[in-house]
Amino acid sequence: MADYRQMWKDLGMDLELHDQLCEVLPTAFGDVYLSQEDRPESMDYYNFVVSEIHGVRPAELIESQKKGGKVFGTFCVFVPDEIIFAADAIATGLCGGSQFWVPGGEKVLPTNTCPLIKASVGARLEKTCPFFRIADMFVGETTCDGKKKAWEILAEDVPIHVMDMPQMKRQKDLDAWTNEISIFKNKVEEFTGNEVTSEKLSQAIKLINDKRRALKRLYEFRKNENLPISGKDVLLISQIAFYDDPTRFASMTNKLCDELDERVKNNISVFTAGTKRIMLTGTPMAIPNWKLHHIVETSGGAVVVEETCTGTRYFENLVDETKTIIDEQIEALTDRYMKINCACFTPNTGRIDDILRLAKEYNVDGIIDVNLKFCNLYDTEGYFVERALKEAGIPVLGIETDYTDQDAEQLRTRVGAFIEMLSNK
Amino acid sequence: MADYRQMWKDLGMDLELHDQLCEVLPTAFGDVYLSQEDRPESMDYYNFVVSEIHGVRPAELIESQKKGGKVFGTFCVFVPDEIIFAADAIATGLCGGSQFWVPGGEKVLPTNTCPLIKASVGARLEKTCPFFRIADMFVGETTCDGKKKAWEILAEDVPIHVMDMPQMKRQKDLDAWTNEISIFKNKVEEFTGNEVTSEKLSQAIKLINDKRRALKRLYEFRKNENLPISGKDVLLISQIAFYDDPTRFASMTNKLCDELDERVKNNISVFTAGTKRIMLTGTPMAIPNWKLHHIVETSGGAVVVEETCTGTRYFENLVDETKTIIDEQIEALTDRYMKINCACFTPNTGRIDDILRLAKEYNVDGIIDVNLKFCNLYDTEGYFVERALKEAGIPVLGIETDYTDQDAEQLRTRVGAFIEMLSNK
Ligand code: SF4
Ligand code: SF4
Ligand code: SF4
Ligand code: SF4
Repeated sequence: MADYRQMWKDLGMDLELHDQLCEVLPTAFGDVYLSQEDRPESMDYYNFVVSEIHGVRPAELIESQKKGGKVFGTFCVFVPDEIIFAADAIATGLCGGSQFWVPGGEKVLPTNTCPLIKASVGARLEKTCPFFRIADMFVGETTCDGKKKAWEILAEDVPIHVMDMPQMKRQKDLDAWTNEISIFKNKVEEFTGNEVTSEKLSQAIKLINDKRRALKRLYEFRKNENLPISGKDVLLISQIAFYDDPTRFASMTNKLCDELDERVKNNISVFTAGTKRIMLTGTPMAIPNWKLHHIVETSGGAVVVEETCTGTRYFENLVDETKTIIDEQIEALTDRYMKINCACFTPNTGRIDDILRLAKEYNVDGIIDVNLKFCNLYDTEGYFVERALKEAGIPVLGIETDYTDQDAEQLRTRVGAFIEMLSNK
Repeated sequence: MADYRQMWKDLGMDLELHDQLCEVLPTAFGDVYLSQEDRPESMDYYNFVVSEIHGVRPAELIESQKKGGKVFGTFCVFVPDEIIFAADAIATGLCGGSQFWVPGGEKVLPTNTCPLIKASVGARLEKTCPFFRIADMFVGETTCDGKKKAWEILAEDVPIHVMDMPQMKRQKDLDAWTNEISIFKNKVEEFTGNEVTSEKLSQAIKLINDKRRALKRLYEFRKNENLPISGKDVLLISQIAFYDDPTRFASMTNKLCDELDERVKNNISVFTAGTKRIMLTGTPMAIPNWKLHHIVETSGGAVVVEETCTGTRYFENLVDETKTIIDEQIEALTDRYMKINCACFTPNTGRIDDILRLAKEYNVDGIIDVNLKFCNLYDTEGYFVERALKEAGIPVLGIETDYTDQDAEQLRTRVGAFIEMLSNK
């Protein structure tokens, strides 16, 4: 790894604590990723991104800041990156996926808070993640109790703009979201000093749609009987999509897809015949949370699709590119974003339709409904999800977990038994 | 107790299970309430209400239903009872405060859900509370994750109208609440077949304000050095306010206040000199949750004020009675209700102002910040509350508890030590 110590120091990071993180991450990545056989060669790019995760991209963001650009950090797939890029700023995902940051979050948050929130707050307050230091402004949203209140704590440390998410999907709620996007646009314009013109917004819509199209193309390969790429690798790519440069990301992902096209032609699969096809549904898996994918794919299963915000919810549905007037473009944003079916809505029956549809499209053998501990929204909704799957005759396993390794063995036993059961069906 | 078995049977209740509840409640009430010395004689009314809790008032509600009236069950002090009474219907609080109902809730809800929600869902689904059977329509709100999703489960069993609570208090959010009240009014009109005219609404506003005035008058006595009534008794009265007939409740409470006037004149106190004056702040205490009050008042303390939704948040601020046009009346409702400072808002700094103000008004020695387990909103907000109190030099004890008795001894030790510390100050 190149020497980024001076950069980290300039960012006000806690170098000593950060060193500890830098020590464990490569080992974890090696164990989970580099141990895989037959990986596509084009995964080299993503391997490189991870190996330099706190170096290359942060350096790029700082470079853009030196030229006067702003960086916005986001925590939810509802925040429209298009507005940010249209103001010549950069959006980067900030969700924390490592147990390393959790204790820092627990210093100010209730223990009974989901690890994603605790890790995100900890990463900022303990100064151990360059992305959390670089972002000029955080963008929060009122999606769940935990995040809604966590912004108040973070706001004492960093500028935050909070978008008020509707909690239902009536027409008036959609209108309210359109209004929130307008308010956000004004805020971004003011903060960056750059106007979001309809031309710029058109370009940004195209930019982010291209990223979605690349991910969609990637996911298509997972519908094949022969799987040319592992679920773990796709998860990593999805996670990187949240903070990589969108143009480069789309281009590298399309390059990977070209390689996968070749593999499909040659009937190459990274899994042996009979491997059970698993869908994961539930809470997001922020980098470097690879826990469940790793367990599934070392227990006779292949993850073929994730109905999560680090999965299909992130890229399904495009923003209409034909609009040229700013108000209509914002409405087009609302149209696309409000198709995301998050458990923060009441009711959220569309998610069950999504899961049933994806189960067919990806020809899954079984579904794991995974919940980050203390996420009350997805946990309660699991009641309906699991019931609907049982009614549809699709085997389902409900799992609750966090970022620690304490339950790894127990999870391995349960997932193993589930996949075993699928094999005997 | 009169024989209400036939009524309960007609309500489709689980009589066997209900018998178990009827067995424990009088003992608990006796231990906590009747054991007190020097209680005002006018407490007889509230004792009677509790002793016949599943009989007298339910019978009245059923009587009104026989005459064509509707009963609405509510779960949050933001739901405007005025609209309901203006439609010649009756509102009754439905929050569950007993551990008895929790296991029933846990059958469908995550264990990591606050006991208030689990008890409320359990009371309905296990058919062991007449109020939950009688209500023709439940009124939910999107205040916290747990409740928001619990409505989806209850909606399969009983008609529910959900009011979308704003999550901030900008002007547009206040307008949104006005709109929600209008939608609610239409729903109530449709469901009852009665129009909410401005005359009827005027009367209902007066009716509910009278209840608030009675409670305000009652709370004023707690500002005295000599406390003519215990905190436990006031809590009971506040809890009964949620489901009693508002006219009778106001009249009986004013009658009690007349007696308390006499006591004040005669310098009567139900506590010995030197008893420490305690404020409770935090999550609501639904009937029969008397746990913390009982511990405080048997440990050398007196609860002199509750900054909770079963305390000041329920009755502070009146609705403007001078408006005569329906739209203006609804705006007046918004004005009053949006003064409630619940942790479901972000930010919610007004609550800290309230606590500091009440601490002065009631001359408190110390504050207990009490949180129902798994209430992420109040738990996270406790970070700010406790910090502000420390800065203001007011001793504060943070407590998390649920409806079980498992932590009673531990709480008693902690509360005892806190009050001891106040005495040595
Ligand atoms: S799960 Fe919901 S709150 Fe979380 S990132 Fe997805 S849409 Fe946002
Ligand atoms: S997983 Fe659940 S609790 Fe955690 S941030 Fe997402 S919605 Fe909130
Ligand atoms: S604490 Fe908040 S959600 Fe609960 S009753 Fe009070 S206002 Fe409603
Ligand atoms: S105490 Fe908290 S979690 Fe429980 S119902 Fe009230 S706001 Fe919701």
